Amino acid sequence: MRCLTFLSDFGLDDGFVAACHGVAARIAPDARIIDITHLVPPGDIRRGAAVLAQTVPVMLVGPDNGLLSWAAEALGGASAAVTLTNEELWNHPVAPTFHGRDIFMPAAAHLATGTKLADAGTEVDVGTLTRLAAPTSRIMAGAAEGEVLSIDRFGNVQLSIPSAAAAELGITVGAALTIRCNRRELTAPYLETFGTAAPGELVAFTDSAGLISLAVNRGNAAEALSLPAGARVRISPEG
Amino acid sequence: MRCLTFLSDFGLDDGFVAACHGVAARIAPDARIIDITHLVPPGDIRRGAAVLAQTVPVMLVGPDNGLLSWAAEALGGASAAVTLTNEELWNHPVAPTFHGRDIFMPAAAHLATGTKLADAGTEVDVGTLTRLAAPTSRIMAGAAEGEVLSIDRFGNVQLSIPSAAAAELGITVGAALTIRCNRRELTAPYLETFGTAAPGELVAFTDSAGLISLAVNRGNAAEALSLPAGARVRISPEG
Amino acid sequence: MRCLTFLSDFGLDDGFVAACHGVAARIAPDARIIDITHLVPPGDIRRGAAVLAQTVPVMLVGPDNGLLSWAAEALGGASAAVTLTNEELWNHPVAPTFHGRDIFMPAAAHLATGTKLADAGTEVDVGTLTRLAAPTSRIMAGAAEGEVLSIDRFGNVQLSIPSAAAAELGITVGAALTIRCNRRELTAPYLETFGTAAPGELVAFTDSAGLISLAVNRGNAAEALSLPAGARVRISPEG
Repeated sequence: MRCLTFLSDFGLDDGFVAACHGVAARIAPDARIIDITHLVPPGDIRRGAAVLAQTVPVMLVGPDNGLLSWAAEALGGASAAVTLTNEELWNHPVAPTFHGRDIFMPAAAHLATGTKLADAGTEVDVGTLTRLAAPTSRIMAGAAEGEVLSIDRFGNVQLSIPSAAAAELGITVGAALTIRCNRRELTAPYLETFGTAAPGELVAFTDSAGLISLAVNRGNAAEALSLPAGARVRISPEG
Repeated sequence: MRCLTFLSDFGLDDGFVAACHGVAARIAPDARIIDITHLVPPGDIRRGAAVLAQTVPVMLVGPDNGLLSWAAEALGGASAAVTLTNEELWNHPVAPTFHGRDIFMPAAAHLATGTKLADAGTEVDVGTLTRLAAPTSRIMAGAAEGEVLSIDRFGNVQLSIPSAAAAELGITVGAALTIRCNRRELTAPYLETFGTAAPGELVAFTDSAGLISLAVNRGNAAEALSLPAGARVRISPEG
Repeated sequence: MRCLTFLSDFGLDDGFVAACHGVAARIAPDARIIDITHLVPPGDIRRGAAVLAQTVPVMLVGPDNGLLSWAAEALGGASAAVTLTNEELWNHPVAPTFHGRDIFMPAAAHLATGTKLADAGTEVDVGTLTRLAAPTSRIMAGAAEGEVLSIDRFGNVQLSIPSAAAAELGITVGAALTIRCNRRELTAPYLETFGTAAPGELVAFTDSAGLISLAVNRGNAAEALSLPAGARVRISPEG
C-alpha cells in the first residue's frame, strides 16, 4: 500500500478536498490518503510549509512557490524535480482554478501506483526551485534568538530555536530560563514536558519536532505572551 | 474497490460521522468512504444540493427532500429510485433521529458491495421525487442575470450563470465586464483565473464547475461586494 | 480488515492527526482508521468520554485518566488492561509531548494487526483504572432529575436520564412533560423525534444513545434554554 499525504488551504466547508480524493481513488484505488490539514489559512505558504516540514512526508507533489521547500530540506534536500508537463496524467478538462484536483492530485496518485517521476514531466534543476527563507535563529553570547515559527491549537509557541541550541547554552532539564519578548523579561523552567508544570505556569520544553517551545500548562501561551507567528524571542540561562 | 461519498450537516465536533463510518466499515469493509463535507449548515438543503451537484457523485442515497435533485440533474437525471423499505439492510435498532447511521449509510454500503437497487426497497416513479427549484439564470438583451449560488471558503462568489452564457454575450477572456449587484455597477476583467489578476483586483472567471464566478485576488469577493447566497447579479459586456 | 477508532483534542489545523495516521499506516497498512472527532475541547476529558461512550468502539487504547471509562462501562466494563510498557511497539524517538503519535497510536496499530494485548505491556488490575464520576440521574416521587450530558452541533440537549426512566414515570410518546431548569418551568411534548414538532417548538425525545434529549425543531435548544453541559434538569409528567 502506498500513502498519499495531502495538505491544502481548501477548507472543510466545500467539496474541494473530496473532489481531489475522488480523483485519487479512481487512479490509485489502493493508495491510502492521509489528510495533513486543509485549514492552512488561504494562501499562507509559510504556515503550510511549516506544517509540512514537521509531518515529514516522503513524496512531495505541489506548486513551486516554496510550500514544499522546508519539508524537502527537513528530508535532506530535493534530489530530483520535474515540472508536471505530462498531460496524460492529468484530470481533463483541467480547470485553471483547480490544479489541486486536475494536476497535482492525479500526478501524485499515478506516482503512488508506480509511475516513475521522470514520466510525470520535464526534469528541472533542483537548484532553481523556489525556497522560502528559513526561519532564523542564532546563538549569541549566552543567549539564543529566534522567531515564533508556529502556534498550535493549544496556544503552544514553537520557536525556530533547535533544542541543540539550548544544550549549547548549558540549559538542561530542570534549569530556569530567561525569556525576552515584547520588551518583557520572563522566567520559566525548562522541563521535559509542559504537563509536569503547575496549572497556569509558563514552561519551556523541547517539542515533538525538536524545537524549543513555550507553553502554559492548561493555558494558552501565545495569548498569555501576546506572541504572534514571526515575533522575535530570545532565551538564555537565568541569572 | 467501490466508493461511498458522504455529505451531511452532522458537523465534526460530535461522533455522528464516525458512527456512520463504523456502520459502513462493517457492511462494506473494502469500500472507500469519501467525505464530501459535514459542515453543511444545519438543515440547509440548497447548500447541500449545490455542493453535491458540483462534486459529481455517481450513486446517491439520501432523503427525498430535494437534497439529491441538483446532483441527479447534473448527472443527466435520475433513471430509477426506490424507497428504502428493505429492513434487512438497516442497522437495528433504528433511532428515529439518526436515519443517516441506521438507514441511509447501511443501504449505501450494501449497494457498494453489489446489492441491487431493486433489492433495497420499493420502486418509486422518478417523476414524483422532490426537486429543488433550480437556481435561475436568464439571458436578456445584452446581459445575463443570475443569483449567487454558493460562496466558498475563499469568498469566491459563484453565480448561477453558466460560462456558455458569457460566450453567447460575446464575452471572451481578456474582455471587461459590467457587474450589477446591490444597486451598484462595477467593472471587472473576465480572465482565465483570478490568480492572473493584481492583488486586490475584482475579477470574473469560469470556475471549476463551469459557472461564472467573481473573485478578488488574495481577497474576499463576497465580503467586498456584500453578496450573500441568493443575491441577484447581472453581468454584461462593458460599455 | 481491522478498524482503529481515533479520538483526540488535537484539532484539525495542525498536522498532529496526520502524524498519527502516518504511524498507523506504516504498522497496520490494512487497518482502516475511523476518526471519531479531534475537536474535543483541549483537555476536556468528560466531553471526550461522553463522545467515546456513545460511538461504541470495541478496542480502547489511551491514557488512564478516565477518558475511556464511560465507553468501557457502556461495553460492559473493562475485562483486562495493560500499561503500555513494551517499548518495541513504540515509535522512536518518543516525544514527551506527543504520546498519541509515539505510544498510543503505534500500540493500537500493532493490536490491530493481531499483536496480543498481553504483549503490549504489563497487566494491571482493572479495578485500579481511573473512572470518571458517572453523570448522575435519579428518579424521585413522580420526577426524574439529571444533568446536561452533552450538547451537539444542532444545540440538542442530551440529558443523563435514560429513556427507561421516562417509561417508569409513565411518560409515553405523545404525552406532555414538565421540564424544570434554571428556575423555570416549561412544558414540552414527548415525541418520537423532534422532526415531527412544529418549527420553533420545544420537544423531548429519546435520542440515538437511548437518553432523553431536548430539542427545538429547526432551532437551538441549548441556546433557547441557556443550558450548558452539567446543568441540572428535572422532568415529570405534566399536571
